[in-house]
Amino acid sequence: MTLYYLYTYTSSFSLIQGTITLPHSPFFPFSSHLQLPHTVTMQTATRKEMETLELLHMNKGAGETSYAMNSSVQNTIISCAEASRKKAIVQILCTSWPEKMGIAEMGCSSGPNALRVISEIVDGVYATTRLLERPPPELVVHLNDLFANDFNNIFASLPSFYRKQRQEKGTGFGPCFVSAVPGTFYGRLFPAKTLHFVHSSSSLHWLSQVPGGLEDVNGRALNKGKIYISKSSPQCVLDAYSQQFKNDFSSFLASRTHEMVTGGRMVLSFMGRTTMDPTSDHSCYQWELLARSLMTMVSQGLLEEEKVDSFDAPYYAPCMEEVKKVIENEGSFIAEEHDAYEIEWDGGMKLQSDSLSRGERVSRTLRAVLESMLESHFGSHIMDELFRRFGEHVDEHLSNTDTKYINLVVSLVKQ
Amino acid sequence: MTLYYLYTYTSSFSLIQGTITLPHSPFFPFSSHLQLPHTVTMQTATRKEMETLELLHMNKGAGETSYAMNSSVQNTIISCAEASRKKAIVQILCTSWPEKMGIAEMGCSSGPNALRVISEIVDGVYATTRLLERPPPELVVHLNDLFANDFNNIFASLPSFYRKQRQEKGTGFGPCFVSAVPGTFYGRLFPAKTLHFVHSSSSLHWLSQVPGGLEDVNGRALNKGKIYISKSSPQCVLDAYSQQFKNDFSSFLASRTHEMVTGGRMVLSFMGRTTMDPTSDHSCYQWELLARSLMTMVSQGLLEEEKVDSFDAPYYAPCMEEVKKVIENEGSFIAEEHDAYEIEWDGGMKLQSDSLSRGERVSRTLRAVLESMLESHFGSHIMDELFRRFGEHVDEHLSNTDTKYINLVVSLVKQ
Repeated sequence: MTLYYLYTYTSSFSLIQGTITLPHSPFFPFSSHLQLPHTVTMQTATRKEMETLELLHMNKGAGETSYAMNSSVQNTIISCAEASRKKAIVQILCTSWPEKMGIAEMGCSSGPNALRVISEIVDGVYATTRLLERPPPELVVHLNDLFANDFNNIFASLPSFYRKQRQEKGTGFGPCFVSAVPGTFYGRLFPAKTLHFVHSSSSLHWLSQVPGGLEDVNGRALNKGKIYISKSSPQCVLDAYSQQFKNDFSSFLASRTHEMVTGGRMVLSFMGRTTMDPTSDHSCYQWELLARSLMTMVSQGLLEEEKVDSFDAPYYAPCMEEVKKVIENEGSFIAEEHDAYEIEWDGGMKLQSDSLSRGERVSRTLRAVLESMLESHFGSHIMDELFRRFGEHVDEHLSNTDTKYINLVVSLVKQ
Repeated sequence: MTLYYLYTYTSSFSLIQGTITLPHSPFFPFSSHLQLPHTVTMQTATRKEMETLELLHMNKGAGETSYAMNSSVQNTIISCAEASRKKAIVQILCTSWPEKMGIAEMGCSSGPNALRVISEIVDGVYATTRLLERPPPELVVHLNDLFANDFNNIFASLPSFYRKQRQEKGTGFGPCFVSAVPGTFYGRLFPAKTLHFVHSSSSLHWLSQVPGGLEDVNGRALNKGKIYISKSSPQCVLDAYSQQFKNDFSSFLASRTHEMVTGGRMVLSFMGRTTMDPTSDHSCYQWELLARSLMTMVSQGLLEEEKVDSFDAPYYAPCMEEVKKVIENEGSFIAEEHDAYEIEWDGGMKLQSDSLSRGERVSRTLRAVLESMLESHFGSHIMDELFRRFGEHVDEHLSNTDTKYINLVVSLVKQ
């Protein structure tokens, strides 16, 4: 899915990295309020909403606002998990030697990033087969994303991908079959016991649906003037988001449990936070600024306030304790390692034009990711103005505060 | 790939059908001239040509010249093999009961036809599981076509396809996983021993490349003024086409041999002929009229003659004896049944407008299939005029002669 938002990288990949130190106390603040208050309608997404989510996608094509032209930051995020991926590949091949090795990239998106991870994994398998002097397995590579993802864009790059593999590795390397498997990764996508390695980058922070429980019994919005968790959001909104993440991540793991072989491995990378507080700036301030941009348009009569009140992003940035709790409850995987990468909002991003302000660059990255979602709710006519204002708000914010974002990476092994 | 041309259907599916009766004599006219004369340069396609072929595709989108709007005839062609497909599914499930059943549609194209066969196969498996009271297998469905096929178009239909399956069959039916596997079916596409049923309609008459040997030692075209086999083509042109088909169909079978399980079945449907003579009208007269349309443009200075001389269609309509010979030589499959369907050039085709002449309708069908190929050689600027003239030539021809086309269907079982 690779729906993404604001982050960036410091030059020469000197990412600020460190394992999150979380309290080992059995107290887990989220477990106490996962039961929603009785006054809240636990409303699930309507058919229309579900269908809209099914059709979310990065901006297509190769134009100024396209994801292909505005995804260099996501590429850097992919780099965060490079060591974890390499280690996982070697560990899989040291444990068993499959004739067919099933590999899935969940939320592959399109553009230059889509085949990057696959290329790296194929290189890793090749290097390991040479090192261990074993016959290469047949690589069965699956690219997954939602139905409206631009798979045509990826397929146009496949002939050169295959040629490069043949040139670099010769005919002695086993065949590699790349396919696309569209659909939500919160349900089954693959037949039983066929996957050895699953990777996902910048996708699992996207929920399967807008959480239920964001309206009162009379259908009035509980998160007025906001589009995600905010410091002013009532507790039930925080609860609803946390519960939706828990449900979705459980479904993700349960689906992979069926699909993966014993000893199979996953490396999952997604936006999160290092504090227990879901209203902390590093986990939601980009949404705060986007809401502010929308509300200035409301105040000038360019948009109805009700439109903003009724929009809530299907997104959640969890803390590692929440993630680990879901993994434990599901019970099929062991989280062997986890890391957190602190990433600046803006930094070494290089877009076509160097004349852009930091805010403009951040705005373009966000637009490439969010436009299909926002358009379907607010209409396409406000997009230019919205992202212009958003860029200004980001510039203003970054001139005062160096807010950073957190990318979590977790390595799992199937029991 | 489903690159297609001129055919049609009579109303209410009353196709003129019959098994081809071919001489059982060991004499096979093609084997004698598969060796090319020494004077012919056996030139393989250049890198540029290969890359062009990799990017062939049906006309995209849903406009007047799109394949989606001009593929109702191909839908009828698919109907020709319906009984063969049903029988194959039942036979596979009566012989063994796989936990995972691999199904591949080779040359799926896009538009409304792409999921039709899959839908029918899923229905067939479902009906058989109910009939035999067995647990449903996991269906692993692969849609294959060339890299430039409009897979996005198919994926947009998948949510409603899945919903329909759930509604019709309930949750008791096993999961069905649909994926896209882009690439040429003349090479390996799938891991070993994973396919139980392979289907291909309207695709195998498209060659992997323009045959070698269509130029003399000085690089001069041997098939001047023609774009496919014609009554005026020299024998070496006929030989080159026949040899290319033999090579390609052998490669197709050899690839499937690796990929299919023992007892797996294939139903292949493609354009062909019922006579030994490859210059017979029913196997090539549409190309004759297209060449004539091009040559009238040459005579009026709208196109260089050299452009026509240097174009040859990567197409071949074989007779069943050629097909059977390749199957025998490859040795892994038994051709259990074969049929031929005589199909009128034009008939019950219903396009948007009923005011079109027969020639215009035939021209639209051909354009939806051939435009990407012709554009890359002749340029897009002549397409409107070329297909206008072609429609006129078809009208003129059909007013005098009721030329028909032959669709061959062959059912194979893997030894």
